[in-house]
Amino acid sequence: MAEDRLPKQSENFSEWYNQLILKSELADYAPVRGCMVVRPYGWALWENIQKALDTRFKKTGHVNAAFPLLIPMSFLEKEKEHVEGFAPELAIVTIGGGEKLEEPLVVRPTSETIIGYMYSKWIKSYRDLPILINQWANVVRWEMRTRLFLRTLEFYWQEGHTAHETAQEAEDETLKILNLYTDFAINEAAVPVIPGIKSDAEKFAGAQRSYTIEAMMLDTKALQSGTSHNLGQNFAKAFDIQYLDRNNEQQYAWTTSWGVSTRFVGAIIMTHGDDQGLILPPKLAPSQIVIVPIFRNDEEKEKVMTMVGEVENALNQFRIKVDNRENLTPGFKFNDWEMRGVPLRIEIGPKDVANQNVVVSQRDIPGKAGKLFLPMVDLAKNIEKLLNDLQDRLLKKATEFRDSHIFEPKNFNEFKEVIVNGWAYSYWCGDASCENSIKDETKATTRCRPLGQEKTSGTCIYCGKPADYKTYFARSY
Amino acid sequence: MAEDRLPKQSENFSEWYNQLILKSELADYAPVRGCMVVRPYGWALWENIQKALDTRFKKTGHVNAAFPLLIPMSFLEKEKEHVEGFAPELAIVTIGGGEKLEEPLVVRPTSETIIGYMYSKWIKSYRDLPILINQWANVVRWEMRTRLFLRTLEFYWQEGHTAHETAQEAEDETLKILNLYTDFAINEAAVPVIPGIKSDAEKFAGAQRSYTIEAMMLDTKALQSGTSHNLGQNFAKAFDIQYLDRNNEQQYAWTTSWGVSTRFVGAIIMTHGDDQGLILPPKLAPSQIVIVPIFRNDEEKEKVMTMVGEVENALNQFRIKVDNRENLTPGFKFNDWEMRGVPLRIEIGPKDVANQNVVVSQRDIPGKAGKLFLPMVDLAKNIEKLLNDLQDRLLKKATEFRDSHIFEPKNFNEFKEVIVNGWAYSYWCGDASCENSIKDETKATTRCRPLGQEKTSGTCIYCGKPADYKTYFARSY
Repeated sequence: MAEDRLPKQSENFSEWYNQLILKSELADYAPVRGCMVVRPYGWALWENIQKALDTRFKKTGHVNAAFPLLIPMSFLEKEKEHVEGFAPELAIVTIGGGEKLEEPLVVRPTSETIIGYMYSKWIKSYRDLPILINQWANVVRWEMRTRLFLRTLEFYWQEGHTAHETAQEAEDETLKILNLYTDFAINEAAVPVIPGIKSDAEKFAGAQRSYTIEAMMLDTKALQSGTSHNLGQNFAKAFDIQYLDRNNEQQYAWTTSWGVSTRFVGAIIMTHGDDQGLILPPKLAPSQIVIVPIFRNDEEKEKVMTMVGEVENALNQFRIKVDNRENLTPGFKFNDWEMRGVPLRIEIGPKDVANQNVVVSQRDIPGKAGKLFLPMVDLAKNIEKLLNDLQDRLLKKATEFRDSHIFEPKNFNEFKEVIVNGWAYSYWCGDASCENSIKDETKATTRCRPLGQEKTSGTCIYCGKPADYKTYFARSY
Repeated sequence: MAEDRLPKQSENFSEWYNQLILKSELADYAPVRGCMVVRPYGWALWENIQKALDTRFKKTGHVNAAFPLLIPMSFLEKEKEHVEGFAPELAIVTIGGGEKLEEPLVVRPTSETIIGYMYSKWIKSYRDLPILINQWANVVRWEMRTRLFLRTLEFYWQEGHTAHETAQEAEDETLKILNLYTDFAINEAAVPVIPGIKSDAEKFAGAQRSYTIEAMMLDTKALQSGTSHNLGQNFAKAFDIQYLDRNNEQQYAWTTSWGVSTRFVGAIIMTHGDDQGLILPPKLAPSQIVIVPIFRNDEEKEKVMTMVGEVENALNQFRIKVDNRENLTPGFKFNDWEMRGVPLRIEIGPKDVANQNVVVSQRDIPGKAGKLFLPMVDLAKNIEKLLNDLQDRLLKKATEFRDSHIFEPKNFNEFKEVIVNGWAYSYWCGDASCENSIKDETKATTRCRPLGQEKTSGTCIYCGKPADYKTYFARSY
C-alpha cells in the first residue's frame, strides 16, 4: 500500500531504496538479522530472471543439478586462499539430531569445494570432459552490514561449475559466460553493464582470474552484478580432479565457476526507479500490463467488466493483471501500480466502452505525455510495440546516464572530485599499493578493466608511473 | 555406464533400487552422511515434476515466494506438538561469522513457524485473506536411516502455506491440494495413488488433520508421496496470526500446509522400473526419445546423420536426445538407455535411410514385440500416439499391480499373511492401541482412510470391537 509517501530518490537514495522494496512488497525483513523474505512480487521477478538465464545456460549446453547445502569444514581448508576469503563469513552447524557433530558442517557460502570433491569422483578420462553443470541454490554468508537484495546473510543465486581438458577451454568458458551475463543484463533487464576483468585484490578467493559485469546505479555507485571465474587448476589440485588425457597420462582438470544472484533485483531497482517507485523492464516485469476498471454503479460495472474480459483475451500473450480490488479508488490503484513499476496501465471506463478504445499509460513517461488512446483493433500488436519501445527507452536512458557519469580525470585531484558523483576511467599501474591508497583516500575501488581494451600508454592516476591500461574506479555496493 | 549388471528386482529389491539410482546417474552419495547429490539426469526429472506441479499451483491462484533457511530455535518451541515432533531431527547453527550465536538457529526442517511469524505481520484484515503462498526449497532433517530420494538429511520440496478466514475455507484448500496432488500423480507420473486421511498417530506434528496420497511400490510397500495438512488455528494461535473480520472483530486465521518432495522420484522408480532399469513416464521423462545412429564407415555415417537431423527436426516438439557418443557400440547404447528408462528408442541405420523409415522400440515392451517400423510420413503424429499409449499402459499396469495386492483379510491371522506381500484394507476401531499392536506384530502401519468412503458397519480387524470405516494398512518406506 502506498499511503505514506516514499522518500525522494534525490534526497535520500538509500531510504528510497529500502522503503520502496517494503512498500512494493518485493521483500521484507526476516526475524533473523540480515535475512530477508522474498515476497511473491519479488519472487515472480526473480523467476523471470531465472527463466531468462536458465534458457541461455541450456542453449549453451549446460545442465542443472543439486549439490548439498552442508559442507565438511575440512573441505574449505583444502584451498588456502578460498578458506582465508570465506572463513570470517561462515555459518556453522555443530549439532545434528541432538548430538554434537564430530566434524562441524559449514552452510555453503559457495560450492566450489563440494562440487570439486564430486567431480574428482566422476571424472576419470578426457571423455568425461567437459562437465558443464549449474545449480540454482541458496547460500549463506555471515555479512556484518546487510541491505535487502544487495547483501543478505542468505541469498539466492545460480552457480555454474565446469571442468575442462585445457586451460584455453576453461578461459573460453569463463568468457562465454561473461558474454551471456552481459547479453542478459542488457537485453532482458535493460541494465547497461560493463564487462571486464577484476584486479587481483578484487578477485574471487581461489580464482586465477575473475571477470565481472559492473553496473552504475542512479546514485552513481557501482554494483557488481555477476561474476565469472577462471579457477585454473587451483581447485583441481586441492580436490584431486584428475583425468587420463588423450595420451594416456594423468592431468589435472581446469575449472571455472560463475554466478548471478538475487542482488540483480537490486540492480534493476536502482537502475530504472524514480520518485514514484519501481520501473520494471517489460521483459522481466511480473505483470507487463495492469488493467484498472473504472465504474460508478452496477450497470457501468457490467459493461466495463465485459470489455475488461475482451481486452484480457486480446492480450493473453502478455503477463497481465486485472486490479478488481474493491474499496479502493482508481486513483489509489494508479499510484499503487506506478509504485510497483508495471510498464503499462490500461484504464477502461464507460466512455471507453462506448468508444471501443482503451487508455494506456506508459510508466516511464509521466502524466499526459505518456497517455495514449488505443482502439480495440490491432490492440495486441500496438501493445507489443509499446512494450518493446519502453524496454528500449529504459536501456537508452540508463546508458546515457551511465556515460554522462563516467569521467577521465586528468590528475588525482580531479579524480577525487569526479568520484563523488561518478566513475573514473583512469590509467592504473596495476600496483596493489596504489589501489589501496586510492581506496583509503576516496572510498573508490577498482571495478574492472573492460574487455577488448587496446594497450595504450599512459601514467598511473595515483603514482604517475607508466601504465598500459585504463581501469574503472568507483564507490560501490 | 551399465558394465556390471544390476541386481534383479525380484531377488534384491533394495539393492536394485540403490544401484539403479547410481548407475542411471539420477543421484550419488554426498560426502556428508545421509546427504545426496542430485545429478543432472535426476534433476531434469525433478524439474519436470516441478513444472507439472507449479503450473497446477499457479492455475489455482497460488504464488511463489522464499522464506529464510535459518529459524530461531525459540520459534519452533511455540507450537508444542510441532517442536516435539521435530526436535530430535534438527541441524543447528551455533556459530556465525566466527562468533557463538546468542540464540541458536535451526536449519529449517519445514517452515510453518517462520511463515506463521511473517503472516502475523502481513495479515491485518479479512481483506488480506486468503494468502496462498508456495515455496520451492531445501529442508534438513537429521534422519538416522537414510535412502537416496526416499529419506535424506537434506531434501528438496515445495511447501505450500495458506491462511484463511474460516475453518471451512482451510478444509476446502487442504482437500483442493490433495486432489491436485492426486491428479498430478496419476496423470503425469502414472503413479496410481490413493488419497485419504491419516490417523492421529501418523499426522503431521502440529496439524489438526493430515491428508496423504499413498502409493504402492513394486515390493508392495507403501510410500507416502505427498501430504496436505489442515492446521486449524494451532499455528495461528502460536504465532498470533489475527485479523479483523467482517464484523470488525479480531479472529485467529485458519492455516494449511502441504508438500511434495524429491521422494516422489523414488515413487516413480519403484512404481515402474524393471530388471533392465528405470521406466520413466513419457510426460516426465527428461528425454522422451533417444536416437541411436548406426553406421560402419564414414560414407554410411554421413547418410545416417543427415537422416538423424531430419528426424530430430520432425520431432522437435518432443524432448529428444541423439546419442552420438563415439567408441561405444549400438548394443551398449541400447542397454544404457533402457537402463535409464527412456520411453522410446529410435534406431537409424543405412537400411532405414534407404527405406525412409525408422525402427522404434518401446521401453515397456521387451524385445521384438515392442519394435515398430515407422515411415517418415506422419512421424510426429505416430510418435505422439506411441508416447501417450506408453503413458497409459504404465498407469494401467501399476493400477492392476496395486489392486491385485490389496486384500481384505477376514481375521487378524489372514491379515498377518497378506501383509507380507500386500496391503490390507480392514476395519479399524480407530483406537491407537490397536494401531500400535498391529504395528508391533506385523510392522504394518495405517496408511490412510480413503476419501469418499461411506460409513458401514464392521468389526476392528484387531480387537473385534465395532468399527465404521476401513483403513489401508501396509509396511511402508
